[in-house]
Amino acid sequence: MIVVMSHGADKEKIDVVVNKLEKFGFQIHLSQGVERTIIGAIGDKTRLGTFELEAMPGVEKVVSILDPFKLASRNFKEEDSIIKVRDIEIGGKTIHVMAGPCAVESREQLMESALCVKAAGATMLRGGAFKPRTSPYSFQGLEEEGLKMLAEVSQITGLPIVTEVMDSKSLPLVAEYADMLQIGARNMQNFFLLKEVAKTNKPILLKRGPSATIEEWLMAAEYIMAGGNHQVILCERGIRSYETYVRNILDLTAVPVVKYLSHLPVIVDPSHAIGKWRFVQPMARAAIAAGADGLLIEVHPNPAEALCDGPQSLTPENFNSLMDDVRMVGKIMNRDVPNAI
Amino acid sequence: MIVVMSHGADKEKIDVVVNKLEKFGFQIHLSQGVERTIIGAIGDKTRLGTFELEAMPGVEKVVSILDPFKLASRNFKEEDSIIKVRDIEIGGKTIHVMAGPCAVESREQLMESALCVKAAGATMLRGGAFKPRTSPYSFQGLEEEGLKMLAEVSQITGLPIVTEVMDSKSLPLVAEYADMLQIGARNMQNFFLLKEVAKTNKPILLKRGPSATIEEWLMAAEYIMAGGNHQVILCERGIRSYETYVRNILDLTAVPVVKYLSHLPVIVDPSHAIGKWRFVQPMARAAIAAGADGLLIEVHPNPAEALCDGPQSLTPENFNSLMDDVRMVGKIMNRDVPNAI
Amino acid sequence: MIVVMSHGADKEKIDVVVNKLEKFGFQIHLSQGVERTIIGAIGDKTRLGTFELEAMPGVEKVVSILDPFKLASRNFKEEDSIIKVRDIEIGGKTIHVMAGPCAVESREQLMESALCVKAAGATMLRGGAFKPRTSPYSFQGLEEEGLKMLAEVSQITGLPIVTEVMDSKSLPLVAEYADMLQIGARNMQNFFLLKEVAKTNKPILLKRGPSATIEEWLMAAEYIMAGGNHQVILCERGIRSYETYVRNILDLTAVPVVKYLSHLPVIVDPSHAIGKWRFVQPMARAAIAAGADGLLIEVHPNPAEALCDGPQSLTPENFNSLMDDVRMVGKIMNRDVPNAI
Amino acid sequence: MIVVMSHGADKEKIDVVVNKLEKFGFQIHLSQGVERTIIGAIGDKTRLGTFELEAMPGVEKVVSILDPFKLASRNFKEEDSIIKVRDIEIGGKTIHVMAGPCAVESREQLMESALCVKAAGATMLRGGAFKPRTSPYSFQGLEEEGLKMLAEVSQITGLPIVTEVMDSKSLPLVAEYADMLQIGARNMQNFFLLKEVAKTNKPILLKRGPSATIEEWLMAAEYIMAGGNHQVILCERGIRSYETYVRNILDLTAVPVVKYLSHLPVIVDPSHAIGKWRFVQPMARAAIAAGADGLLIEVHPNPAEALCDGPQSLTPENFNSLMDDVRMVGKIMNRDVPNAI
Repeated sequence: MIVVMSHGADKEKIDVVVNKLEKFGFQIHLSQGVERTIIGAIGDKTRLGTFELEAMPGVEKVVSILDPFKLASRNFKEEDSIIKVRDIEIGGKTIHVMAGPCAVESREQLMESALCVKAAGATMLRGGAFKPRTSPYSFQGLEEEGLKMLAEVSQITGLPIVTEVMDSKSLPLVAEYADMLQIGARNMQNFFLLKEVAKTNKPILLKRGPSATIEEWLMAAEYIMAGGNHQVILCERGIRSYETYVRNILDLTAVPVVKYLSHLPVIVDPSHAIGKWRFVQPMARAAIAAGADGLLIEVHPNPAEALCDGPQSLTPENFNSLMDDVRMVGKIMNRDVPNAI
Repeated sequence: MIVVMSHGADKEKIDVVVNKLEKFGFQIHLSQGVERTIIGAIGDKTRLGTFELEAMPGVEKVVSILDPFKLASRNFKEEDSIIKVRDIEIGGKTIHVMAGPCAVESREQLMESALCVKAAGATMLRGGAFKPRTSPYSFQGLEEEGLKMLAEVSQITGLPIVTEVMDSKSLPLVAEYADMLQIGARNMQNFFLLKEVAKTNKPILLKRGPSATIEEWLMAAEYIMAGGNHQVILCERGIRSYETYVRNILDLTAVPVVKYLSHLPVIVDPSHAIGKWRFVQPMARAAIAAGADGLLIEVHPNPAEALCDGPQSLTPENFNSLMDDVRMVGKIMNRDVPNAI
Repeated sequence: MIVVMSHGADKEKIDVVVNKLEKFGFQIHLSQGVERTIIGAIGDKTRLGTFELEAMPGVEKVVSILDPFKLASRNFKEEDSIIKVRDIEIGGKTIHVMAGPCAVESREQLMESALCVKAAGATMLRGGAFKPRTSPYSFQGLEEEGLKMLAEVSQITGLPIVTEVMDSKSLPLVAEYADMLQIGARNMQNFFLLKEVAKTNKPILLKRGPSATIEEWLMAAEYIMAGGNHQVILCERGIRSYETYVRNILDLTAVPVVKYLSHLPVIVDPSHAIGKWRFVQPMARAAIAAGADGLLIEVHPNPAEALCDGPQSLTPENFNSLMDDVRMVGKIMNRDVPNAI
Repeated sequence: MIVVMSHGADKEKIDVVVNKLEKFGFQIHLSQGVERTIIGAIGDKTRLGTFELEAMPGVEKVVSILDPFKLASRNFKEEDSIIKVRDIEIGGKTIHVMAGPCAVESREQLMESALCVKAAGATMLRGGAFKPRTSPYSFQGLEEEGLKMLAEVSQITGLPIVTEVMDSKSLPLVAEYADMLQIGARNMQNFFLLKEVAKTNKPILLKRGPSATIEEWLMAAEYIMAGGNHQVILCERGIRSYETYVRNILDLTAVPVVKYLSHLPVIVDPSHAIGKWRFVQPMARAAIAAGADGLLIEVHPNPAEALCDGPQSLTPENFNSLMDDVRMVGKIMNRDVPNAI
């Protein structure tokens, strides 16, 4: 940590800061420049959360040198983490595509979706039973009934299920049915929920918040890991920007950046990011080319009838074509991609 | 609602869309331009949440004409809403300043803060017992112990309390002690929590999400109101941008915009938005000049020792000076501001 | 164009707007809803630039239906445009990679760069003689001397040159040496410069502004095309966001979006967008997978000695490896990529 | 300057960096922490523009400690700068309001505007003769004819003129007529133009770029000052964000921040930032309360007929009311504001 003292901070103010840092066990390196005094503080950063240097008289700014995440860091664990969801390994050599409808609407819709995505090579089924919707007047999901449909369809098709948990209250219910728990983008910094899912033994799919930095995203993962659950898979799903043509900007650079900073697997959700089905396939290709470990894709047997997010859902035919592309790009990346059946 | 058909959409595709709209009770106005066909659909927009036109073949884009919020809208209720917190009326002629420390740290710190903000003219006490922190290693708040201190200090000083509720699980506990429940920025779209606080009879302070549009913010208010609780106070607290010198961009234009679109009161939190105490006072003045109904200000008897967000906290002396300014600007705005004691 | 009248706008106000629109030759469709009156106006949109409806009494908002660009639009010209730079065709079956140093520093540095990028399969040489730098104290480029070096190295290697023109004053000089003129991101809305380059017969590489929407970018292309020069190649180079780990967010979704909206070729500059060489190669792969027609890559024989933007420059070895990847992804995309020599 | 070496950088790499820094005259302080080696480098930062440390092997990141601007810095000149435009002093005790139409349209329109803004207390006339427009099909300004009208109306009313210069080519022409030259937001980093206006002896109104950081804005001022012209007035005009209800987010916090970092005067343009006349008056009040030295306001005798940006222009009546408010807030700020006539 570097503490930059303001222009004209006198010796007394510098001493107060140095004393404080030493009291917290930091080793001090003082550099007196022509214009500023700079205090280098070396020590255990985790003690720093409980006091704030920037409010001290004479302090201009404090620059953190080390990344604030530990367990999620590549420095902590050098080799890639592989997260198991039933018999599927995410983060290993195989690229896994999780596909299905935005929301579970009926047993028929879900079964039809599941069969077609499985046939195309998807290895997990996605589908929301609890839906976070901007408007209270929009369809909010089938809730427990939807979870039951997911479980039934999973049993028949053999596809593990990923579904969103929105609140600690409904967590036990969702955890009963889901193979992997999804933390939605708007809940990425719902710290209570992060602490609660950390207590389950389920793998967690952690979506990036709509305006989260990569550091904040990894800190959210750190919450889950610090709580005892190291089975975290990160999911890039687009970040908010001024552009209005698409819903969000899909930040594919985050894929190699996260893989550089962290050992956790990263998948990409182009459907939700973009909001227009027409651009999902090229961005799915690009995601794999950027190094993603998997994809989350919305597929609906009849997008025009979807109760939620139809515009971004692929038809079964389009999903087949997307999977063909994923297989081709996967091969270049020296990854395996399950075949169509 | 306006449906713009794509260039070259044939009669058949247009008919399918028109039929669908008519089935949902919309009255149709068809405009066949040289380059595009445009379908105007007049009817009850609340039916629209359950299907999506943009996925239909031949549809280029769908433009919503009416605001999606109803209960929160100025069209629904023309006169300003006044929200009572104990004997205080927010949104009326009096400007109310809620002040206190970021986090409750000890009985002494809280009492000292409360006495000084009360002396300066603040009419409510703020202080966090549950703290949303980016890092799991940072101080997370004193929880129930902190709530008890708030209640005790409130009883002694007579100041009503506003404190954050982070999760539906701890809601009953927080509601037992708080006079007003704060929904933090990162929980603005925690829809479960919004539905739960809607069931209480407590006034709700709804902070704007770090990257929420004004419409999304009003839709979050709509969730609470649609759930039966109309006592919502909005709080602008800065939005995320590319600028790094301050923590967030305080969007003061949102104040007159929200007051134009909605009947709900709006207050401003310059402390959290900016993150540097030096700029809190000028922005507090500006907030009142922009038409805010109140302020939320962080004050700490000793900011350099604060366990949380010291850099943005004012000393008691600075807060006094801020209140003097607020009184002067308030007078111009034809508002009352409580005197210092 | 749709004009939404405000709640409670009376007949007189509506008539004034309708009369104005009719005077401008628009055909009117009036829709009187329960809450709002909506005026549909069909006609030639180019007449609209000279008056503004939103200021008229009783008007709530005006929604544009058609894209504001004409010549750049896919509706105007359905087939892909192919832009020739000497004997190279950009936007056709072959993917072209333009590479070289950020700034021309010396004849040796440039020659060394040119030989190595040519050997690796690049077909154009990039290099700045006039450099836009945030600080007036930074190296500003070798100017005419640099242009002469570019021309000499181009003649020896046979690689056509792309270099930036920063101002209409230096345009004649730059145009004398360059095969393609680059409009830098910060000049994307320098409308004088756009009009001036429109008068040359040179192909123009138009970089997207740091916070330009796709529509604004295409409108900048429209300026050049409306001025008589249809040889425009678009270049995505990252947009500004709140993320600080990388310099800009590379918006790869813009590639398929632009190719859907426009017939113009699109290339991608991952070096400048990201600012860290480590992530250039994966994002180059992703760009090609997203459908880009080419790349702009910074290569320096010795990045640590570069006078400008060393951190984002690849070594010759890394560039070779990048080109190998581009060839593999290009094949999947059914594109040709020139071989290494 | 702080150089953070990457985890595992060996002694050899550290030595190479240290040697390089020492060669550039820096004094070195080495801190070997448990996880990282940190190199503190003290010396003249202006030598740093010509090489880049971040590309050197083993370097993780480089943190700049001092602000990159010198002449514009409050450290360089402690007292507020006062810039004279004819007999008007901007940055002194008097708040100056510059008002007039977005574009000069006719002699009558301009004269009518000038008389009404003068009567209301404005002390400078604004009006564009060269207009930067997003579309090439929009009205581009009356150019020299408009400049002549400005000069004539200025002579009659006694109001000095501020008008935009868009390009170095037209600079001599504009400088002949204007009392103050405006650099538009989209030209803030048109470095050629900045260098050219630096050679004039005219005061420069430098608008903040649509996505410029405060540091970039001050660096643009530094360009003009380093070129020999210290008469720079900064103008906040809103920054780009994801919010769509208003055109830009007016960043009023930038006012006290710039006044803290720099000695240059700062004015605010709420009209252009917001794009809706309804919110101009409250934000004008807020700007003065935040400490602005003046305002730039669009006023049009008949906004609905304006050829450019009607929706954001005030009527003469509204402008009168705005000036009344400015006078009241100005008094609180201990500033003088010229009376209405």
